[in-house]
Amino acid sequence: MTDKKSLKDQTLALHAKNKGKLATFLTTPIKTKEDLSLAYTPGVAEVSLAIAEDSSRVYDYTIKGHTVAIVTDGSAVLGLGNIGAEAALPVMEGKAALFKTFANLDAFPIALNTQDSKEIIRTVKNITPVFGGVNLEDISAPRCFEIEEALQDIGIPVMHDDQHGTAVVVLAALINACKVSSRQLGETKVVVLGAGAAGSAIALILTDLVGNVIILDSKGIIDQKRQDLEPYKARLAQATNKRGVSGNLQKALKNADVFIGVSKGNLLKPRDIKLMNQKPIILAMANPDPEILPDEAKIAGAYIVATGRSDFPNQVNNSLAFPGIFKGALDSRATKITKEMKLKAAEALAALVKDPSPDKIIPGPFDPGVTDAVASAVAKAASKKASVRS
Amino acid sequence: MTDKKSLKDQTLALHAKNKGKLATFLTTPIKTKEDLSLAYTPGVAEVSLAIAEDSSRVYDYTIKGHTVAIVTDGSAVLGLGNIGAEAALPVMEGKAALFKTFANLDAFPIALNTQDSKEIIRTVKNITPVFGGVNLEDISAPRCFEIEEALQDIGIPVMHDDQHGTAVVVLAALINACKVSSRQLGETKVVVLGAGAAGSAIALILTDLVGNVIILDSKGIIDQKRQDLEPYKARLAQATNKRGVSGNLQKALKNADVFIGVSKGNLLKPRDIKLMNQKPIILAMANPDPEILPDEAKIAGAYIVATGRSDFPNQVNNSLAFPGIFKGALDSRATKITKEMKLKAAEALAALVKDPSPDKIIPGPFDPGVTDAVASAVAKAASKKASVRS
Repeated sequence: MTDKKSLKDQTLALHAKNKGKLATFLTTPIKTKEDLSLAYTPGVAEVSLAIAEDSSRVYDYTIKGHTVAIVTDGSAVLGLGNIGAEAALPVMEGKAALFKTFANLDAFPIALNTQDSKEIIRTVKNITPVFGGVNLEDISAPRCFEIEEALQDIGIPVMHDDQHGTAVVVLAALINACKVSSRQLGETKVVVLGAGAAGSAIALILTDLVGNVIILDSKGIIDQKRQDLEPYKARLAQATNKRGVSGNLQKALKNADVFIGVSKGNLLKPRDIKLMNQKPIILAMANPDPEILPDEAKIAGAYIVATGRSDFPNQVNNSLAFPGIFKGALDSRATKITKEMKLKAAEALAALVKDPSPDKIIPGPFDPGVTDAVASAVAKAASKKASVRS
Repeated sequence: MTDKKSLKDQTLALHAKNKGKLATFLTTPIKTKEDLSLAYTPGVAEVSLAIAEDSSRVYDYTIKGHTVAIVTDGSAVLGLGNIGAEAALPVMEGKAALFKTFANLDAFPIALNTQDSKEIIRTVKNITPVFGGVNLEDISAPRCFEIEEALQDIGIPVMHDDQHGTAVVVLAALINACKVSSRQLGETKVVVLGAGAAGSAIALILTDLVGNVIILDSKGIIDQKRQDLEPYKARLAQATNKRGVSGNLQKALKNADVFIGVSKGNLLKPRDIKLMNQKPIILAMANPDPEILPDEAKIAGAYIVATGRSDFPNQVNNSLAFPGIFKGALDSRATKITKEMKLKAAEALAALVKDPSPDKIIPGPFDPGVTDAVASAVAKAASKKASVRS
């Protein structure tokens, strides 16, 4: 409790000191009338005319090419749930701080007064001219799927980080975990617990890459026989679970190689791990309390354990992926973020760990070169595709 | 031509150098895992919870209280007209630069993909959570009136600067011009040429303060007998022109004390000035070419001449007003910008010129203390009203 109080006091004081965490600055300072006449009237008219003549020059002369909107409706903020747009702002500013810290991109929080999908979609479409990309953040399932889908053709990359950023880092961790445990990724059986934004994207990115994926929601294994599935879960049932298994977590874990938890604390028991294949891989990423604590998992036989926490080894942290993904997409002027770009991002992340071991399957967030490696892989994948602005 | 080319080259190079003029920076740098745990998860959750409990704390812990949206649809940009949202961005970034330079406020350009009034209104409403105020910019008349009007009750101050910023600076100039020419403001006859956003707001702020205002559009004096008036001009006809005069500019100028031009270059002739009362006051603010050049006006008898240009004395420049108006409104947490706040802003601006003379009726944009004086007058006026958040 003392620690918690102290964290609260520290963080409130930090946020009160400068009123939030972000500010703007001028890359072109204005100190004289002459500065003013170049940055503003009359000089600026020439810049506007140049863009009016050739709209692609908006990337040369304005902030668009390095500016990302962080769009939320405040409906699924951290573990706090639907706390609304204004209460979501500190998290969105934090996300902007990560964009700046890790990718030197300028991100701006756009927290919306509406939680209606259609209204969110049209608002995002309306505000795109100044943004080079849109990071959707903390929007609850299933609306997040519909919104992201509807924004794929607006001419700039739009990605829901809670889905794809997480999936990319998980895939990177899994690539190295397989290496360390002498497995072929294509032959593994993977169980994903939690079928929200993150679980759904993880299952979908893995389906083509691993032997079999089974995903569970709070009612058990998602399979095509279930009658209670909302549309996005029905699609998950089609894409996963090759053998059409039904039942609970224990049924799913039998002979599984990998457990991926994006659910709630303490849902995985030591005896569950014993149902799995030899050298089981446990990615227990519920925050702040993982599905099982690393020590407990190790005692039960886990060979590799990763969590979402910074105080244990192998932190699966979105900041490893999204800064580089957006940087690569913006650098290549990609118009969308494709599956290929995500796969290459994951491979680049995995390759950064030169000598993977059970306690080091992914880079740490402050390891040097992470964003650059991801960005360069993403830009390369983008430029092979028709998904790039000419 | 050489000068023009050189200005174009310089300004394009300046804008290309850093890709635009703005960037973000972190007032709370993130260098360690500990920094991350305060600015982002897990610490940030405490800040979000504090705001969820008491929404007024969004002003203490986030950027809202110092952040302004600069909203445009690109329909009336400088003298360039309807060049669209992306081409408007350099001007909006320039405006943000002025907010930063003169008021240390963080402004962010929101250029909209739509020119439909209703769509603009709903989009602005949707994005307000992160903004403490909205500066409407370069939106053409008459849509600018409808949009501004519809956004007066959204809980944060919304002001169309092309209207009210201009009107405030003009009023400040007029207060001192009357002083210098030994006139009573309340007894002057004022002629406004140009009935767009600026002319309309100037006429309306002056109606209660001067003896008589006559405003003209391209077809002549606006009076209640005219059948061709759109609704906002019909309202202008009611509010101005006490004696119901009809006709052209020359008719209007007869015995006028003040000419205010917000129209086009060279529309005022030396012989027109001769129709006016003694010691005529000429504010010829068309850009880049004024309605009449200062030298020519002086030869024709003008006692005081002001323009919109920085290379002549008495530059009527919006940057004298809007930074302080928004700063005062944000400092006082005003929910709207009232007429009283604008009047006090104008008086404060006028009072900054300690010893007004024909060539010094308003402060220069870089004169010290301008924004502070305006902000303080605006905040004081705001706090007397019910227009402030409790």
